[in-house]
Amino acid sequence: MNPKVAVIMGSASDYPIMKESETILKSMGVDVHVEVVSAHRTPEKMVSFSQQAKHKGFSVIIAGAGGAAHLPGMVASLTPLPVIGVPIKSNNSIDGWDSILSILQMPKGIPVATVALNGGKNAGLLAIRILSLGHPELSSKLEELTQSMKDDVERSQEALNQG
Amino acid sequence: MNPKVAVIMGSASDYPIMKESETILKSMGVDVHVEVVSAHRTPEKMVSFSQQAKHKGFSVIIAGAGGAAHLPGMVASLTPLPVIGVPIKSNNSIDGWDSILSILQMPKGIPVATVALNGGKNAGLLAIRILSLGHPELSSKLEELTQSMKDDVERSQEALNQG
Amino acid sequence: MNPKVAVIMGSASDYPIMKESETILKSMGVDVHVEVVSAHRTPEKMVSFSQQAKHKGFSVIIAGAGGAAHLPGMVASLTPLPVIGVPIKSNNSIDGWDSILSILQMPKGIPVATVALNGGKNAGLLAIRILSLGHPELSSKLEELTQSMKDDVERSQEALNQG
Amino acid sequence: MNPKVAVIMGSASDYPIMKESETILKSMGVDVHVEVVSAHRTPEKMVSFSQQAKHKGFSVIIAGAGGAAHLPGMVASLTPLPVIGVPIKSNNSIDGWDSILSILQMPKGIPVATVALNGGKNAGLLAIRILSLGHPELSSKLEELTQSMKDDVERSQEALNQG
Amino acid sequence: MNPKVAVIMGSASDYPIMKESETILKSMGVDVHVEVVSAHRTPEKMVSFSQQAKHKGFSVIIAGAGGAAHLPGMVASLTPLPVIGVPIKSNNSIDGWDSILSILQMPKGIPVATVALNGGKNAGLLAIRILSLGHPELSSKLEELTQSMKDDVERSQEALNQG
Amino acid sequence: MNPKVAVIMGSASDYPIMKESETILKSMGVDVHVEVVSAHRTPEKMVSFSQQAKHKGFSVIIAGAGGAAHLPGMVASLTPLPVIGVPIKSNNSIDGWDSILSILQMPKGIPVATVALNGGKNAGLLAIRILSLGHPELSSKLEELTQSMKDDVERSQEALNQG
Amino acid sequence: MNPKVAVIMGSASDYPIMKESETILKSMGVDVHVEVVSAHRTPEKMVSFSQQAKHKGFSVIIAGAGGAAHLPGMVASLTPLPVIGVPIKSNNSIDGWDSILSILQMPKGIPVATVALNGGKNAGLLAIRILSLGHPELSSKLEELTQSMKDDVERSQEALNQG
Amino acid sequence: MNPKVAVIMGSASDYPIMKESETILKSMGVDVHVEVVSAHRTPEKMVSFSQQAKHKGFSVIIAGAGGAAHLPGMVASLTPLPVIGVPIKSNNSIDGWDSILSILQMPKGIPVATVALNGGKNAGLLAIRILSLGHPELSSKLEELTQSMKDDVERSQEALNQG
Repeated sequence: MNPKVAVIMGSASDYPIMKESETILKSMGVDVHVEVVSAHRTPEKMVSFSQQAKHKGFSVIIAGAGGAAHLPGMVASLTPLPVIGVPIKSNNSIDGWDSILSILQMPKGIPVATVALNGGKNAGLLAIRILSLGHPELSSKLEELTQSMKDDVERSQEALNQG
Repeated sequence: MNPKVAVIMGSASDYPIMKESETILKSMGVDVHVEVVSAHRTPEKMVSFSQQAKHKGFSVIIAGAGGAAHLPGMVASLTPLPVIGVPIKSNNSIDGWDSILSILQMPKGIPVATVALNGGKNAGLLAIRILSLGHPELSSKLEELTQSMKDDVERSQEALNQG
Repeated sequence: MNPKVAVIMGSASDYPIMKESETILKSMGVDVHVEVVSAHRTPEKMVSFSQQAKHKGFSVIIAGAGGAAHLPGMVASLTPLPVIGVPIKSNNSIDGWDSILSILQMPKGIPVATVALNGGKNAGLLAIRILSLGHPELSSKLEELTQSMKDDVERSQEALNQG
Repeated sequence: MNPKVAVIMGSASDYPIMKESETILKSMGVDVHVEVVSAHRTPEKMVSFSQQAKHKGFSVIIAGAGGAAHLPGMVASLTPLPVIGVPIKSNNSIDGWDSILSILQMPKGIPVATVALNGGKNAGLLAIRILSLGHPELSSKLEELTQSMKDDVERSQEALNQG
Repeated sequence: MNPKVAVIMGSASDYPIMKESETILKSMGVDVHVEVVSAHRTPEKMVSFSQQAKHKGFSVIIAGAGGAAHLPGMVASLTPLPVIGVPIKSNNSIDGWDSILSILQMPKGIPVATVALNGGKNAGLLAIRILSLGHPELSSKLEELTQSMKDDVERSQEALNQG
Repeated sequence: MNPKVAVIMGSASDYPIMKESETILKSMGVDVHVEVVSAHRTPEKMVSFSQQAKHKGFSVIIAGAGGAAHLPGMVASLTPLPVIGVPIKSNNSIDGWDSILSILQMPKGIPVATVALNGGKNAGLLAIRILSLGHPELSSKLEELTQSMKDDVERSQEALNQG
Repeated sequence: MNPKVAVIMGSASDYPIMKESETILKSMGVDVHVEVVSAHRTPEKMVSFSQQAKHKGFSVIIAGAGGAAHLPGMVASLTPLPVIGVPIKSNNSIDGWDSILSILQMPKGIPVATVALNGGKNAGLLAIRILSLGHPELSSKLEELTQSMKDDVERSQEALNQG
Repeated sequence: MNPKVAVIMGSASDYPIMKESETILKSMGVDVHVEVVSAHRTPEKMVSFSQQAKHKGFSVIIAGAGGAAHLPGMVASLTPLPVIGVPIKSNNSIDGWDSILSILQMPKGIPVATVALNGGKNAGLLAIRILSLGHPELSSKLEELTQSMKDDVERSQEALNQG
């Protein structure tokens, strides 16, 4: 059975970044469920979503948010699943510092796996690394990606040489 | 009837700061309820506390937290009461910046009245200013406080002169 | 009688942000008085405005300013009313840090209820939460707003689903 | 078979923080291998360690480092396993900012799951969340931990009441 | 007639820093008046002090304050005299950043001559440079100081050589 | 005799900011000499300019620079005149922080009167406040300016009222 | 024999900055080899490049990278040659702070000669200063450059004078 | 003939950090000249020292300074030699940020090779890397150091194993 990842975000305006998670996951054959879940505007939905996530068959939750970004940490406090947090440099944000710090600096007991600012793609790739522990077919896809990154570097070198 | 303020905090280790809210409020005759409510360790309690706060008769909630400080914002999303946030420079905190930004930078729709880092006393005083709108007896107590601050300056001047 | 809120700002160039306070307050039936009051260019006006604000019938003062933003704190030192400070990322400002810190970090004794950078709308909503303590009709309007935010999330989800 | 986690660090002086990872992992029955692997002082060892980590049977690598903290990102570029990075506020560090940014801000393609500054314990707990996907017995241990955190809050409340 | 400088501060706790202004000024024969004038606790005093400063015969005002440091800027808006601001790293302050930014970042029209964090001595020396324009006897004292700083460097070199 | 002010800058690209100093000074009848003096590209010129500034009849030096902005501090170490530093957010600069800190944080003994980022106009006004101590005719011009700022506020209020 | 400098970068997108190194070096007759070497996407290439750099006849390595910029430090740990690091404000970067700190803050034992953000040209000039120790002909070229910078200042002064 | 390095610093209080440069250089047989040269207190000495440094036979200059740290950049503008800058977290400094930025952010044309905050040892090692280009005997000493760092890691691992 395909593993299933939930990609949630505090606002639909975060979707351009979170779509990168969705794209890379789907490209590797992972089922993705995308949903807007706002910690502040829909707190009850956020609670029930988090409490049911494991029973609904999700293996990993990717949560993106900007400004005072409470979504990843609150979800992590309500599920035993690994939660990946994506700080987003939204219009609300002070150069992204608020998003980063309010996702990263979780207290002892409740971890959030934080990736780089606007790191939607890396969040997807981190989920794939996690899932590949139980899904060896994902490992070979990761290897292909690794190889394609090496090829990219080589190709960009050639372009540079040709000026 | 006395107004009632809830003073909550994410961890008992925040109490030395939050006690300053309690002290100033009690000194002015306001009823204070102090409780440890952790957004991350006790999220369900946080939800029910916030949802019931108004019906339990509280007028204002003061919430202190450090690091990725989600408590004030989450409470504010679950109650229509004014919520005052106190950023705390806890051991978890990066010089307080994480506490400040994760309390202050709330998205449009859910305001938190943020006070200075470790500003427990000012949180209490802000609650009193708010309550004094409906409780004129608090106004005269605020005036006394204002006068006593002027007197303090004068006394410190005298001490300086005798230096 | 309708509650009355003063929305002041250090410069007319702050109005696009402060207008958000005015709009949300008026939409809920609160009387709003808008005025340019500069702590630095019109200090005497700032003093007299602050000293008379309570007697003129204002319940809450919302003050926005950028750069070395002294207006909210100075007004708070001259009135017993609750003062809400809006840090503004003006042309004068270093990414908003100066505005935030000079409004937020008030000394013990003089609280300012600080909202997010450029948080004009939240300042208005915070005033409404405060006023609703004595004006129950505002509570139901706040409930409507809370519901409409939930609806917005749902609608944005539908838009997402339809790609 | 027990899952196996590698806990590595750039310097033995990082051990007080990284020991927290080791302790929580061992307390839940996870095998832990602790090793000093310096990206800068032993780069060849770092390369071979990372390249062999999967074949040696590790499921997750936790890497802690301070200052210009290259270890977690370099390891992640050399293994398909999930890598958890722990920024450490070492003597070399500028209030931890350098450690955080050089671990967190990885380019597209190579994710590192970053936890809070000095977050050795949360790194261990994140590894357990990841491992619990394939080891259901870890899930019930996580549940116990979650319950014990709730109990801690309750107990601290009692202490406060008797305070 | 001796020139006269006012050294004011927001709190008596700022005196250890501001005393450095007083000491260097007195050592060069300048009359110094020291006073606690709090923008927030004694705003009316701050206004009248500033408005009368020129008529009382002061030539320069040195104002020190910490946290949300409004004193130097507010005084500058109420007097035509040159105002020197000393940001103080008080207990209220976030590593001094709030003090610096709320003194330095004055809007167009109202300048404050800001010196380094805790720069009480340099504030005094800046006042002397200003006063020396009209008091040539101060120039030769400044020259002596310049020479004594060169001698200090030479002496410290000798100490270094002797190990 | 008219007072004379030198307005210098590290690069001709700083002129748009420094022109604001020139304009306000000239508008009040102060003689202004504008010159590009680079601490790094023309260090010998910088030394000789600073050493001769007093004898050439300048009363105040205004020095603007961006990035690692050494010009104001180096000039101040080579002249007994008051030196006003203008941090400039040039292309070289990291949001202006480097310019501000390398001008502001002078060691004990050598003061620089620092104004706000890009504060060319305020540097000019600070020079005028300094010069007005010995040139009473400048005081009345400052008064006019103060009045015109009040008028500006009033006018902007009227514009606001008319929407 | 001409000295040889390697100019490497983590991504072809860094080339506009790194080209400045190449240009200044070539203009002074230094042989330059330009190559894309990614610490994260091509770690094995990075290792072998660094280990062979000295034997291939390079004297200095200039390495540019953005975000979590590990390239300069990793190269320095694998070669005894002087390594110059250029922090690049790439799209991945938080205003350049991450690039700067992850290049600058190297632990004891492995130095990287860090230049300013986007300082491609200065990296080239630093390499020339280093090479000139063994290549006196470069010294006279440096002198010409120094003179041309002085001439630039003079010319810009003339342009200023003519308005 | 032994190569000669000058180790200079803005204040004798910087010596504990700069002594690390001296120690590592001497341990590898490099001649070291240590001198206090203050850009601000002894600007003329700084100029003449820099202008003569090459002719006196120095190959590299290491310059340490704190706060508004102008020494390394000013020296680099007055000598064609490679200049290594050591930002020092002195009492004058704001967590070292001012020292770092005022040394690192040099304008185009004048490079300073900046090392980590308080990086006296790495400054010495960078000088050795530079000198080893013309002094092959230094290369083998660098190799020994590299090996001893690997041994240190191994030894610390053993200590860890023995608990």
